[in-house]
Amino acid sequence: MEQPTVKKIAALLNVSVSTVSKAFKDSHEISASTKKKIMNLARELNYQPNPFASGLRTRRSKTIAVVIPEIANSFFYQAINGIEKIASEKGYHVLIYITHEDYSKEVSFLRLLQNGRVDGIIMSITDGTRKTHLEGLFEKDIPVVFFDRVPEKVEAVSITTNDFESGYKATQHLIEQGCKQIAHLYYAKNLSIANRRMEGYLQALKDYDHPLIDALLVACSNEPEVDDATIKKLFISKSPPDGVFSSFERLALHAYKACESVGLLIPEQVKVISFSNLEAANFLNPSLTAITQPAFEMGKVAATALFDFLKAKTYKPKTEYITLPSLFVPRNSTHSKENL
Amino acid sequence: MEQPTVKKIAALLNVSVSTVSKAFKDSHEISASTKKKIMNLARELNYQPNPFASGLRTRRSKTIAVVIPEIANSFFYQAINGIEKIASEKGYHVLIYITHEDYSKEVSFLRLLQNGRVDGIIMSITDGTRKTHLEGLFEKDIPVVFFDRVPEKVEAVSITTNDFESGYKATQHLIEQGCKQIAHLYYAKNLSIANRRMEGYLQALKDYDHPLIDALLVACSNEPEVDDATIKKLFISKSPPDGVFSSFERLALHAYKACESVGLLIPEQVKVISFSNLEAANFLNPSLTAITQPAFEMGKVAATALFDFLKAKTYKPKTEYITLPSLFVPRNSTHSKENL
Repeated sequence: MEQPTVKKIAALLNVSVSTVSKAFKDSHEISASTKKKIMNLARELNYQPNPFASGLRTRRSKTIAVVIPEIANSFFYQAINGIEKIASEKGYHVLIYITHEDYSKEVSFLRLLQNGRVDGIIMSITDGTRKTHLEGLFEKDIPVVFFDRVPEKVEAVSITTNDFESGYKATQHLIEQGCKQIAHLYYAKNLSIANRRMEGYLQALKDYDHPLIDALLVACSNEPEVDDATIKKLFISKSPPDGVFSSFERLALHAYKACESVGLLIPEQVKVISFSNLEAANFLNPSLTAITQPAFEMGKVAATALFDFLKAKTYKPKTEYITLPSLFVPRNSTHSKENL
Repeated sequence: MEQPTVKKIAALLNVSVSTVSKAFKDSHEISASTKKKIMNLARELNYQPNPFASGLRTRRSKTIAVVIPEIANSFFYQAINGIEKIASEKGYHVLIYITHEDYSKEVSFLRLLQNGRVDGIIMSITDGTRKTHLEGLFEKDIPVVFFDRVPEKVEAVSITTNDFESGYKATQHLIEQGCKQIAHLYYAKNLSIANRRMEGYLQALKDYDHPLIDALLVACSNEPEVDDATIKKLFISKSPPDGVFSSFERLALHAYKACESVGLLIPEQVKVISFSNLEAANFLNPSLTAITQPAFEMGKVAATALFDFLKAKTYKPKTEYITLPSLFVPRNSTHSKENL
């Protein structure tokens, strides 16, 4: 079918193209009755302004990108819901890019996004990110806001939770519940949030005079089969842990699986605490003691920070760290006998 | 900063604008050495082709939209991963639109998407969808493929699972495990998949001479508090169910919560089976017997169907129903005493 154009609408109404164009922009130069005639006909013809032409004029795509390492994760989908809520209020679309923890994908996405397809970016880096490629974006006035997995030393707004305190609190809780040998499951040495959580773990061990046992610092991959094997190996070792602090939600499920397969009972023989936003955490067997991040709120704060930048014509990078507190939710997976 | 342009690159290399332009299109008219010179300089200047101008030329945005009712749902995020996998192989971006079960939002998204922002749409409708507004999209040669929550009688490709058989199987399983009073929890009368699942339930009751009890057909909303109250009311009624077939994952968690709060044991007093793609289903207390949809595969099939349409210059709507089988995974939530 022939696409209706401004020209066609002008011809049908016997007015000039510029009159139609001004009417669409709600110009004061055009009378209300003419505007109404033009809008009615446009609707009737199912006319849609060409987004590409319009993009050229306004240099605004009315779209923001969310670049995240994975989507099958309660934290990220709750954060996306928060971002989406703000974006939708502002009349913006949200483009979601999934890097699947592949740093080269992240680099190519960021390069691609320099081309003006989006007005701004909200991002959580991969565990392999060595350097974020922001210069090209900044030169094109495209602001970037980071959340959760934020890079170290970057001139941008970063929203995280109190990861050090949460790591400390998790470890302290296990110690108070009687654990002597506390393992820490984590991903990727390159993530600053993982480092903060681990630092909290190490500090708590130190403060409570628990020796650090290297074998209990367990680096996981992002391959389910590999992680299953790694964690199972931990529990069949000569000196298995009686407490597990998991830095990421999925690793806690691997720990549950490993305990089940080697016949260790949670919480009687092994206590487990994990960062988790799983809605079903309360219904796990046993229910999971969790550090729950305010994911929805973080998404909203990240989006609000981004739209603050988008108000200005040009982007002036600034460094700002916003920290939101996580929630500590004790449940059965860390109960001690006395409390059960 | 001044944006590098084709003109500037041409001037710096002392070649014509058309030579640069042809080099970018990898034209055979331009020598390999000239191409290399041009590409090197473009990279050096951090030149990015203008996507809007390029969109005008090719009429392809290299973007597809995924319109879904919610994202905090294992089924949808697994399906998105499947769509994303195919899209990424084809060099396409995926724009995700969340309707939050709001039909008016769906209507406005579809109207908006007529403007050429995307080349095609993959969609799962809201529970309030009365009419899908596809005519405008079809006129603009924008194909639409539906998955899971598909509209009735629409000229499009629709990918669903064997919902009638799964509803039948779920109910039959509860009957075989000894349940006499089987409740069915469902959302929204308008969804054809919910209807198919319910028809399976009704057919199984009939085949096994179980009378249909109206009070056991429980319509849920999408408001957590309301659903909690509705399902709790069911269990404190004079004649509570001893079996629950839940049509959607989240409703099963409401049933777990309700049973816990009124002191009914699963599976001893109430057996529960649900449609669910929850990765943690195996670690729930008790582990959840599930009908698991091949969500990742459905996403891949939907995306593959869409890209088949995108190969052609114009869109010729066709009606096709593709059905993939769900997996029945028995676990502890439906165990009978004899089997426990």
